[in-house]
Amino acid sequence: MTTTREPTAAGVALAAAKVAQILPATPLLPLEVDGRTIWCKAESLQPVGAFKIRGAWHRLTDLTETERAKGVVGVSSGNHAQGVAWAARRLGVTAAIVMPVDAPAVKLANTRALGAEVVLYDRPGGEDRDEVAERLCQERGATLVHAYADPWIIEGQGSTGIEIAAQMQALAGGGPDLVVAPCGGGGLTAGLALACPDARIVPVEPEGWDDVCRSLVAGRILPVDPFAPPTPCDALQTPSTRAVNFAILHARCPFGLVVTPAEVRAAQRFAFARLRLVLEPGGAAALAAVLAGKVEPGARTAVVLSGGNTDAEAFARVLSGDD
Amino acid sequence: MTTTREPTAAGVALAAAKVAQILPATPLLPLEVDGRTIWCKAESLQPVGAFKIRGAWHRLTDLTETERAKGVVGVSSGNHAQGVAWAARRLGVTAAIVMPVDAPAVKLANTRALGAEVVLYDRPGGEDRDEVAERLCQERGATLVHAYADPWIIEGQGSTGIEIAAQMQALAGGGPDLVVAPCGGGGLTAGLALACPDARIVPVEPEGWDDVCRSLVAGRILPVDPFAPPTPCDALQTPSTRAVNFAILHARCPFGLVVTPAEVRAAQRFAFARLRLVLEPGGAAALAAVLAGKVEPGARTAVVLSGGNTDAEAFARVLSGDD
Repeated sequence: MTTTREPTAAGVALAAAKVAQILPATPLLPLEVDGRTIWCKAESLQPVGAFKIRGAWHRLTDLTETERAKGVVGVSSGNHAQGVAWAARRLGVTAAIVMPVDAPAVKLANTRALGAEVVLYDRPGGEDRDEVAERLCQERGATLVHAYADPWIIEGQGSTGIEIAAQMQALAGGGPDLVVAPCGGGGLTAGLALACPDARIVPVEPEGWDDVCRSLVAGRILPVDPFAPPTPCDALQTPSTRAVNFAILHARCPFGLVVTPAEVRAAQRFAFARLRLVLEPGGAAALAAVLAGKVEPGARTAVVLSGGNTDAEAFARVLSGDD
Repeated sequence: MTTTREPTAAGVALAAAKVAQILPATPLLPLEVDGRTIWCKAESLQPVGAFKIRGAWHRLTDLTETERAKGVVGVSSGNHAQGVAWAARRLGVTAAIVMPVDAPAVKLANTRALGAEVVLYDRPGGEDRDEVAERLCQERGATLVHAYADPWIIEGQGSTGIEIAAQMQALAGGGPDLVVAPCGGGGLTAGLALACPDARIVPVEPEGWDDVCRSLVAGRILPVDPFAPPTPCDALQTPSTRAVNFAILHARCPFGLVVTPAEVRAAQRFAFARLRLVLEPGGAAALAAVLAGKVEPGARTAVVLSGGNTDAEAFARVLSGDD
């Protein structure tokens, strides 16, 4: 059921216009780091707590009447799930979401609260979530809304970049020359690359789940080690990028960056104290790379804070830590 | 050194125009509470983590050249301190801030980091902070920037209401009919009353520091019990409102509301989970009143989330609590 059209810059512009009709722009907050200002795009403030609402809205609003009637199936560790559920409820479409049994409790609860059916799969046991989703789609005639390997999803997430460019123009007198963003499967980063053709795009992945980093170096898609232990950045725990994402990333990103769990926790604490924002680990990955000095800031650097769905207990532990 | 002109709605409009030149509007975030949408004004996302930056900017930009040269003295438990320090640094004005020795460490550190001189006074021991400030002003010829009993401060804080009205018009098709806001000395609430003449304004105070509530009922200014124990809502711990504030509040607010520490903690947790915002106790007081069902929501209800400066340890304790 996956479509094969290519995502385009025009599609990103269209997605941005559709998103702007329904969601106010999230703030672009200035943050001083070592005497320089970086601009933080607070996607954690979206209604579902993550940028994923953008791609889901763009995809579901482009379903045909027939497709709408048969519903959608999403696959997600939690944020895409909530994005699809939010858009589906708003449009009166039935949604089933395939989620890992070890997803954060808050993400499971929020997805159900938005009215979606949650179908669990055994991520720790190695069950293939895409197979589960394909089976559901065949049984129901539903449309698969992939979390990143989908042209609408890529274009929708790219609307983040359109907002960044407009806000930075107003606040700092020009568009971004550098955009640093968390990267799971590459939906957001590919979208940002289409949205910001004049900026360097730097994807940031968590240690052990750096398939995009290694793929960029190798020049071909390399999956993660099938026995890689889970990362605290659950939102970025994707085994492999896909061709539709990699084609864009390979053309635009010379390299990616990897951050450690300790660097991510430090970024969560920094965002807490300096921006008064709650970020989940994956949502803080790009900020972590900047704070750790892994990328030279540009004249106008944007950092995407991609999500804020984390359990209270987990966040309290991060705040209490002194590593 | 306190001026005696009256704050006006025209002054609020002027302040809003000045603030808009330098600070993007903070987001007005929708929040579903018991099936109704309330609109949360996230002033915790201001550069200093609180709305106080507004009044400070309006006041300091209106100083004469002579006044600027002699500097300003602020009196604050922390958020006004940071607002004055931020504005002073930006304008090249010397600032000294009289702060209680028991202010949250993060507020003391942030005020110093903004370049202001911090002069501590013994709040737990009953030292009168206004006397300390007056003495400093006389010694230096500096201008006192009171935290709430000042027409510029009231007008500046009122710019929050101008933004709320414009944002709610765009998002919900009309201005607010109810504005619920945390109340310490009454600077913010008086400003909101001037900014939103058609809305009910409900001030919310912490248990034990409900001087405005009791004053509204009595029809005259009543201070708090001089032996009242400290409240977790340090930002709202003010012994008494003043005539310039009370004149407005008495004319516009039939009553105020009181919230308990447990209600405030519940609101902090709710904002964490549902808005992904870090709120300090005082910043969550108005939300606490709404969540506790103490005020009937209007057709378009605005709730001011006034600040987010809290120590990591304190916030971790709130998240870990199960009261």
